[in-house]
Amino acid sequence: MRADQAYDELMRRVREETILTTVEALLEWDEETYMPSGGVENRSEQLAMLAGLLHERGTDPRLGDLLASVEASALLADEASPVAVNVRALRREYDRFVRLPRALVEEIARTTALAQKAWTSAYGAADFMRFRPWLERIVDLKRAEADCVGYVDEPYDALLEDYEPGLRSAVVARLFGALRRELVPLAERIAGAPRRPDSSALRRHFPRDRQRRFGEAVAAAVGFDFRRGRMDLGGHPSCTGIGLGDCRITLRYHDRDFPGGLFTILHEVGHGLYEQGLDPKHYGTPLGETASVGMDEAQARFWENRVGRSHGFWEHFYPRARELFPESLGDVPLDEFHFAANRVAPSLVRVHADEVTYNLHVMIRFDLERALVSGALAVADLPEAWRAAYRDSLGVTPRTDAEGCLQDGHWSDALIGYFPTYTLGDVFAAQLYTCAERELGGLGEQFARGEFAPLVQWLERRVYRAGGRHPSARLIEVVTGSPPDHRPLVSVLREKYEALYGI
Amino acid sequence: MRADQAYDELMRRVREETILTTVEALLEWDEETYMPSGGVENRSEQLAMLAGLLHERGTDPRLGDLLASVEASALLADEASPVAVNVRALRREYDRFVRLPRALVEEIARTTALAQKAWTSAYGAADFMRFRPWLERIVDLKRAEADCVGYVDEPYDALLEDYEPGLRSAVVARLFGALRRELVPLAERIAGAPRRPDSSALRRHFPRDRQRRFGEAVAAAVGFDFRRGRMDLGGHPSCTGIGLGDCRITLRYHDRDFPGGLFTILHEVGHGLYEQGLDPKHYGTPLGETASVGMDEAQARFWENRVGRSHGFWEHFYPRARELFPESLGDVPLDEFHFAANRVAPSLVRVHADEVTYNLHVMIRFDLERALVSGALAVADLPEAWRAAYRDSLGVTPRTDAEGCLQDGHWSDALIGYFPTYTLGDVFAAQLYTCAERELGGLGEQFARGEFAPLVQWLERRVYRAGGRHPSARLIEVVTGSPPDHRPLVSVLREKYEALYGI
Repeated sequence: MRADQAYDELMRRVREETILTTVEALLEWDEETYMPSGGVENRSEQLAMLAGLLHERGTDPRLGDLLASVEASALLADEASPVAVNVRALRREYDRFVRLPRALVEEIARTTALAQKAWTSAYGAADFMRFRPWLERIVDLKRAEADCVGYVDEPYDALLEDYEPGLRSAVVARLFGALRRELVPLAERIAGAPRRPDSSALRRHFPRDRQRRFGEAVAAAVGFDFRRGRMDLGGHPSCTGIGLGDCRITLRYHDRDFPGGLFTILHEVGHGLYEQGLDPKHYGTPLGETASVGMDEAQARFWENRVGRSHGFWEHFYPRARELFPESLGDVPLDEFHFAANRVAPSLVRVHADEVTYNLHVMIRFDLERALVSGALAVADLPEAWRAAYRDSLGVTPRTDAEGCLQDGHWSDALIGYFPTYTLGDVFAAQLYTCAERELGGLGEQFARGEFAPLVQWLERRVYRAGGRHPSARLIEVVTGSPPDHRPLVSVLREKYEALYGI
Repeated sequence: MRADQAYDELMRRVREETILTTVEALLEWDEETYMPSGGVENRSEQLAMLAGLLHERGTDPRLGDLLASVEASALLADEASPVAVNVRALRREYDRFVRLPRALVEEIARTTALAQKAWTSAYGAADFMRFRPWLERIVDLKRAEADCVGYVDEPYDALLEDYEPGLRSAVVARLFGALRRELVPLAERIAGAPRRPDSSALRRHFPRDRQRRFGEAVAAAVGFDFRRGRMDLGGHPSCTGIGLGDCRITLRYHDRDFPGGLFTILHEVGHGLYEQGLDPKHYGTPLGETASVGMDEAQARFWENRVGRSHGFWEHFYPRARELFPESLGDVPLDEFHFAANRVAPSLVRVHADEVTYNLHVMIRFDLERALVSGALAVADLPEAWRAAYRDSLGVTPRTDAEGCLQDGHWSDALIGYFPTYTLGDVFAAQLYTCAERELGGLGEQFARGEFAPLVQWLERRVYRAGGRHPSARLIEVVTGSPPDHRPLVSVLREKYEALYGI
C-alpha cells in the first residue's frame, strides 16, 4: 500500500466517523430539547445502534494497517506536519479503542444507564446507600478500563488520558496543590473583609423570556454566529457541535438567578466560539478538533469568568439589563450590581460556587476519585471523606449527602477523570487572558466599549485554528510562552478581589 | 442455514435498517424546523452518509440468501402468517433495491438536488424554460429506473409500484376516469347554484400563535398523543415518524387563512394517528408499517375532509374558535362559517383547492406524468398540455406557468408516480368513512359531542393494526367489503354539497 493512498483512505474514514459522531450529537441534543417523553426507549436504541457502528469502524483492523503504512513512511518525517499530527492522534485513539474489549464497553454502558437512575433516586432521597453499590461497580469497571488501556504510574492516569491526552495525574496534583495553597488563604481573607456586597437585589424576579432575549443579544454581541448555531431550552446547559456550521447551545433559566444564568450562557458561548472558530479546512480530522476537554473548558471559563464577571463587560451591558429589568435593577447602581454578582462565600454546591472557591470544589473531587481508583479510599468511606475535605478546604460541612458526595451526576455516568479538566480550564483561561492582555492591551476598556472582536480574533488565531495540533499543555506553552501555571489565575483573582473587597 | 434462524436474522437486520431510517428522519425533521442555515452542507453530508449505509445494507447479498432460505422453507406455508407477510414485502423491496444500479441512484440524487434549485428559480420567475432541461433529465432518469425495475404494461407502473405496491396504472386510470365523470358535473352544478357562501370573514386576521394553540387543542382532542409526538413550525406541513413513541408534525400558519390552516393540521394529525396506532409488536418490520403511501394519505384525508370539513366537527369546536378569535368570528354564525369553509370554486392551484375540485387537479397530473413517462408527451409540450387540461377539467386557464405546470415541487424531487396516491387516499377515506358510519352509526352526532375516540378505535382496529398485512387495494376490501371504489366518495360529496348549495 502506498503511504499517501493509505493516508487518504485514513482521512476519508476518520471524516466518516466524524459524521456519524455528529449524527449521534444531534440525537442527544434533540433528546435534551424537543424529543417527546414517549421517545426515550426508541432514542436509546438509535444511540446504541450508532455506538455500535462507531465501535465497529473505530476498531476496524484496516485502520491499524493504514496507520502502520503511514507510520513506516517518510510522511512523518516532519513532526509538526498535518500528516504527523493527525496520525499521532489517530494512533492514540485507535490503540485505546482496540484495547478496550467490547464486553467491557457494553458493560459500562449498561451499568451507567442503571446507575444514573439509581443516582437520581439516591440524590432525591439524600441516601448514599442507594447509590453505593453502583458506584462500587463503576469504580471497578473504570479500574478494569485503566488496566486494559495501560498506564505507567497509576491507573487514574489512564482515565485522565481520555480527556487530557499527555497529562499525568502527578503533574495535575502538583499544579492543583500550588493553586490550593493560594486560594484557601485568599478565600479566608475575603471572608474576613470588612466590606461586603449586598446581593439581595439579585434574588428579585427576572422573567425568563427576557433573560433569554438578553442572553441571545449578549451571545451575538460577543461573536456567537447564529447563522451557524442556535440556543434552545434544554435539561442541562451544554454546547454541542452537530457538524460544520451547526453548533447548538442548550440553556436553563431561573426566575431568581439572572447573573448566574448569564454566566452560564457566556460559558456555553465560550465553547461555541471555539467550535465555530475551528479550521474548516481540517474539519473532521484531529487537526480541526478541539485540543482537549480542558482546553475546551478553558474557552468556556474565559468567557464566563474573565469576560462575563469583569467590570468592563457590565459597563457595556448593564444599561441594557436595566432597561429590560427596570423593576428589579432600576435602583441598583452598576458597581453594586457588579460587586454582588462577584460575591465570594464558601459553599457546599459546586455549580453555584463563586470563581474563587469553585476550584476548591473541583480539587476535592480530583483527590477523592483518584483515591477511589487507586484503592486508597473505599466507596463506603466516601461520604465521610467528602465531609472532611469540605471542612478542611472550605470550612463548611454538608448536612446531607445530597449537598455532599451525591451532588454531581458525573460518577453515575462513569465520568471519572473528567473533573480536573474544569480547573485545568480555569488555569489555562487565566494564562490566555494574561497573554492576550499583554499583546492586545486594555481588554477591560474594550469590553466597556462593546468591542469583543479583537479578542475573539486573537483567540481564533492562537487557539481555535491550532485545533488538535498540540496537546493542551504544549499548546498553552506555544501560545503564552509558559507551561501550565497556576500563577496567572492567582494574580487575576487576587487583583480583582482585593480591589472589590478592599483587602 | 435453518429457516427460523434465517428469519430471525432477517428481522434483526430489517429492524436495524428501520432504526437508521428513523435517524435519517430526525435529520430531515431538524432541517425543516430548527437547523441553523449554516448547517445545510453538513446536513447533506450526514444524509448522504446515512443513504450510503442504508444502500449498503439494503443490497447486502446476505439479505437475498436469508430471504431465499425462508422462502424455500415451510415457514411460508400459511400465506397470511406474519412470516409470510414480512418475507413477501422484504422480497419486493430487496428485488427493487438490487435492480437499481448504485450509479443511477446517485445520479438521481445529484440531479434532484440541482433540479430543486432550478425549479425554485423557475417558479419564482414563472419561467418554465429554466426548469425544462432538468425535467427532461428527470423523466429520462425515471424511465431508466422503470426499465431497471421492470414492468408488464407500461414503465409508469414501475414508478407507481414504489408508492402503491400491487396497483397498476390502468386500474388507477379506470378508477380516476369514473370519478372524473361524476366530479366534473357536480362542480358544474355547484357553480350554477343560486346559493353561495360569503367567505369574506375567513380572510380576516387570525393571529398565528392563537391558531397554533387552537390547532394543538384540536389535535389532542381528536386523539393525537403529545407524549408520543409533537408539533412544530416547519417549512412544509409534514408528519414524520422518528421511531416508536416519537411522531413529529410540522406546520405553517397564515394570518388570513384560519380554516385552511386547521384542515392542514387535521391532515397531518390523520397521518399521525396512523403512525401512533401501528402495532408496536411488529415495529420495524413491514407488518408494523403503513400499508402504502395511498393508505397513509387516506388517513390524512379522512381527518381533513370527512371530519374537519363536517358540520358536526364545527358544532363542537366553533364556540371555542369564536372565543379565541372574537374580532374575526364574533359576528359569523356557525352555519355561515361552515358553508364558507366549504366553498367550492374551480381554481388554478392544487394546494388551495376545495375537496370537490381537488381530485381533478390530481388527475391532470396523473395523466400528464404518465404521458411524459411513456413518451407520448414531450416535456417541451407540457405547459400547453397543462393549460388544455385545466381548461377541459376545471374551466380555468393559468396565465403563467407558476400557477400552471410549475406549481408543485414533486417533479423536481423526482417524485413521479406519487400524485395518484392523493386521490387514491381520498377514495379510500370515503370508503372507510362510509363503512365506519354503517358500523358505528351517527358519526356526525359524535363529532358534535366531541367524541372521537370510538372512531379512532375503529380505525386502529381495522386499519392501523393491520399495518402492512395487505396491499392497500386488498386492505380496503378486507375492511369495507369492496375493492377500491369511487362511489362512496361521490356519494358523500354529492350529499354534502347538494345540501349546502341547495341543488
